[in-house]
Amino acid sequence: MNSEAVDRFRNNIARLVEHRAFINTVMIFILINAAIVGIETFPAIYENNSSLFYLADRMLLWIFTIEIVLRLIAAKPMLGFFKSSWNWFDFLIVFAGHVFAGAHFVTVLRILRVLRVLRAVSIIPSLRRLVDALLLTIPALGNIMILMSIIFYIYAVIGTMLYQEIAPEYFGNLQLSLLTLFQVVTLESWASAVMRPIFEQSPMAWIYFVSFVLVGTFVIFNLFIGVIVNNVEKASEMELPGNDTDLEKKEPTPFTNENQIDDLQREVQELKELLLEEKRERIK
Amino acid sequence: MNSEAVDRFRNNIARLVEHRAFINTVMIFILINAAIVGIETFPAIYENNSSLFYLADRMLLWIFTIEIVLRLIAAKPMLGFFKSSWNWFDFLIVFAGHVFAGAHFVTVLRILRVLRVLRAVSIIPSLRRLVDALLLTIPALGNIMILMSIIFYIYAVIGTMLYQEIAPEYFGNLQLSLLTLFQVVTLESWASAVMRPIFEQSPMAWIYFVSFVLVGTFVIFNLFIGVIVNNVEKASEMELPGNDTDLEKKEPTPFTNENQIDDLQREVQELKELLLEEKRERIK
Amino acid sequence: MNSEAVDRFRNNIARLVEHRAFINTVMIFILINAAIVGIETFPAIYENNSSLFYLADRMLLWIFTIEIVLRLIAAKPMLGFFKSSWNWFDFLIVFAGHVFAGAHFVTVLRILRVLRVLRAVSIIPSLRRLVDALLLTIPALGNIMILMSIIFYIYAVIGTMLYQEIAPEYFGNLQLSLLTLFQVVTLESWASAVMRPIFEQSPMAWIYFVSFVLVGTFVIFNLFIGVIVNNVEKASEMELPGNDTDLEKKEPTPFTNENQIDDLQREVQELKELLLEEKRERIK
Amino acid sequence: MNSEAVDRFRNNIARLVEHRAFINTVMIFILINAAIVGIETFPAIYENNSSLFYLADRMLLWIFTIEIVLRLIAAKPMLGFFKSSWNWFDFLIVFAGHVFAGAHFVTVLRILRVLRVLRAVSIIPSLRRLVDALLLTIPALGNIMILMSIIFYIYAVIGTMLYQEIAPEYFGNLQLSLLTLFQVVTLESWASAVMRPIFEQSPMAWIYFVSFVLVGTFVIFNLFIGVIVNNVEKASEMELPGNDTDLEKKEPTPFTNENQIDDLQREVQELKELLLEEKRERIK
Repeated sequence: MNSEAVDRFRNNIARLVEHRAFINTVMIFILINAAIVGIETFPAIYENNSSLFYLADRMLLWIFTIEIVLRLIAAKPMLGFFKSSWNWFDFLIVFAGHVFAGAHFVTVLRILRVLRVLRAVSIIPSLRRLVDALLLTIPALGNIMILMSIIFYIYAVIGTMLYQEIAPEYFGNLQLSLLTLFQVVTLESWASAVMRPIFEQSPMAWIYFVSFVLVGTFVIFNLFIGVIVNNVEKASEMELPGNDTDLEKKEPTPFTNENQIDDLQREVQELKELLLEEKRERIK
Repeated sequence: MNSEAVDRFRNNIARLVEHRAFINTVMIFILINAAIVGIETFPAIYENNSSLFYLADRMLLWIFTIEIVLRLIAAKPMLGFFKSSWNWFDFLIVFAGHVFAGAHFVTVLRILRVLRVLRAVSIIPSLRRLVDALLLTIPALGNIMILMSIIFYIYAVIGTMLYQEIAPEYFGNLQLSLLTLFQVVTLESWASAVMRPIFEQSPMAWIYFVSFVLVGTFVIFNLFIGVIVNNVEKASEMELPGNDTDLEKKEPTPFTNENQIDDLQREVQELKELLLEEKRERIK
Repeated sequence: MNSEAVDRFRNNIARLVEHRAFINTVMIFILINAAIVGIETFPAIYENNSSLFYLADRMLLWIFTIEIVLRLIAAKPMLGFFKSSWNWFDFLIVFAGHVFAGAHFVTVLRILRVLRVLRAVSIIPSLRRLVDALLLTIPALGNIMILMSIIFYIYAVIGTMLYQEIAPEYFGNLQLSLLTLFQVVTLESWASAVMRPIFEQSPMAWIYFVSFVLVGTFVIFNLFIGVIVNNVEKASEMELPGNDTDLEKKEPTPFTNENQIDDLQREVQELKELLLEEKRERIK
Repeated sequence: MNSEAVDRFRNNIARLVEHRAFINTVMIFILINAAIVGIETFPAIYENNSSLFYLADRMLLWIFTIEIVLRLIAAKPMLGFFKSSWNWFDFLIVFAGHVFAGAHFVTVLRILRVLRVLRAVSIIPSLRRLVDALLLTIPALGNIMILMSIIFYIYAVIGTMLYQEIAPEYFGNLQLSLLTLFQVVTLESWASAVMRPIFEQSPMAWIYFVSFVLVGTFVIFNLFIGVIVNNVEKASEMELPGNDTDLEKKEPTPFTNENQIDDLQREVQELKELLLEEKRERIK
């Protein structure tokens, strides 16, 4: 009977948690959280009301904690809650707030508070589906990303080797080179700021940069093409069932055809029986 | 009878308003308006003839006012005129000219006069359809735009928090950060002007910028893909009816097939009747 | 008989002009022309051999003139030569060389000589077809280009009005503004060089630039989409006949089906004849 | 018998070379090679252990040499090894290491060592296929690349002619002009750094740059479109066989149809035999 009370309690909470009003309330608190972290960036307002902001943040953290706990209780097998990666996200973003509360990592804590705005995505189903769809396109890009990494690594090592002394701010070490190559692949100031100063001292530098721009944009371009073709294919596959019903609608002929043949068969059978009957009669 | 006269008057105006010559005349005045606002930007010309320009503008404003009033009268239920958002646009752009005429907002008034050139879009049907089509693609982007806004907001708050003091011209406050992020997402000087100066003082800044460039361009890229796939789908759906007729043309075989079976059925029926007749004869 | 001789002469030239060796020879002269204009850009080489270069150019000009004259003679109705816009292009590029030869427009003359390299496109059929295909996509973009022009004009007039004094190098007059807007729409330094200096003095300037970037890239993006969808459609239309043959290949069943029904019909006919024969016999 | 022993030896080596463990081992050495060339870029580490790095590199070079030799032996006709361009690549990248070992081209030797990282592509089959696919799209772009080269050459010659003196750093000679045009076609600082300084001295310069940007981006854009359309076509062609099986699944009717007709035919034949039998009987 105790277990039954627990069950009833859990069911009530599950009903509460899935209620429209509950979700809307959480959404409102997420928006309040968003507004607060936005207003906090204005030093004039923040410094005069820092204790107020602290209080509001504590309250919001506890509200979100209670929300997560309720949803955790409502989950049928309690740990089934953690099957969804969105729930994991919600859980981590909220409980990390408690973990870092006492610590001195003020920046981390503030960033965590801003990231809570992302919970709007996990709360609104259509956004959740959109982000799920976006993330699903990433695995398909696996191979092309490995290839891109190899190209980046090779060019970064060669760039560091060749231009370490000429342009230490761009190719000073491997990490800097990788960052510079990322800048180059976005075509941002790749010539005016990065290549030309090096080019003046090393006249063959254009080979390095032009080849990287060509290879890099070509690979990224093919990555784009791949995604487009995949999407067009998926879209046209979804269209197919629609086509099927169309075909069924406009092809009733084979069915009447079949019926006619059925009729024919029946009639020919009757013919045969008539003839057989006649034969039997004659034999008599 | 009075109401009849009003009706006849309205019909005459409706015929006038829909006449090709009327539309062409309005188009010519729009072009004159365009030329005048263009010439006005040359101070040497404008200052010597400012009263002339004032006169021309007043005349054009009244011409457009009369045009709108005529089209308003011509509309069947008079307020049906406001059902079309293009009519609203025409109405507002013209009547705002009267509202601001006496005021001291000279700049607003001048911009309004330039915006009247946009009436060329509402007058030319093919342009109107094009703009309608362009605007229709926007609602489909709703979710991805909400997502983009959330990403922009989070990065803007974090950017303001982290780089307010290091780069006040880029991340001085929330509005500036949003503007800077828009610049970054267009990949314009994101590294050379925005990231590198910050990077020198805050060595982890590359995470912020590289992640934003990756996430931002990825989302925008998917927004593009979505539009492309939508358009390709629409285009292929429009193609389908054409396909249907093609299929009907090249499939006459099942029809002759069916005819042959009809013939067969008739013949088998005749056979049966022959046999039955024979049987009846024998019984006799 | 004179006219016959002329005809034979024309036919011989037509055969010559269409001969592979003739086209290859012209192609070689075009390449020589390309090499010469390239080498001329090196002052050290050019100044020491300017008379040689002059001679070579004169010779090439006369060679191309003779080629054009031959092709003009070969054309069936002599003026039919001018039906092809490629022939017009060849004619103008060569004869303008004669027109400007005596004049003092040295730069125009030199540019004309460089443009002769473009004749490679008119000579190689595959390149000619490619350029024809590229040019054919332009008319489809008509409406979107008119729209783009209207947007450019409106923004240019407003930009000149508002920022004439703040940034005379970018918005000094209407032409400069149009050039600046073209730069902005390619996203080149739109923020770092164009917007930010203006933004410092006119805090609302971001509305002007951000709105133009959004509208401009959106329209250009749709222009791209339109071309892609058009091309995909065309490609899939071309695929259709291929599909038809495929369908015919994999649908032999209705044909054997039909044959079987033919057989059936014949047999049923035979049956009927048998029965009729029997009946006639019995009557006898 | 000697030849038999050689055959057995070759087969053993072929089995070894194709073994998963062998490929994994080679992959590990490629990763070690990648790590070493990466660490070498840090002068502090490299200078203190240069002899160690030299030793490691020598060892890796010999390991890769042995690997290539084994794969060469394993190849059925020994020179069949060189049929695959990937094997050529592996061979050249490794044996060039021996060729340049004694020479003084330290930079070439170091770049060769970095390029060995690319062997990861030739070892991992999925990456190899991806790169093969990417390279296969290049021949289709042949014509558009010839066209692009012609456009680049013409603009480079004209640019050098016109702006050699005004902007020697951008248009000083033909090679520099080509590099500058490549920068312009990527839209990088084409206006702010390249055009505007020239534009101040030569007011018609905008024609040169705007026309090149329009023509260049238009051609590149069409090159992209071509690849997209090609890919969508290929994808939809691959879909067709899938469609076929679908059609077969949902069209069982013609088959049963055919069976029914078979049955009918058999029955009508039986009918005919019955009638013929009857006739023969009557004749008797």
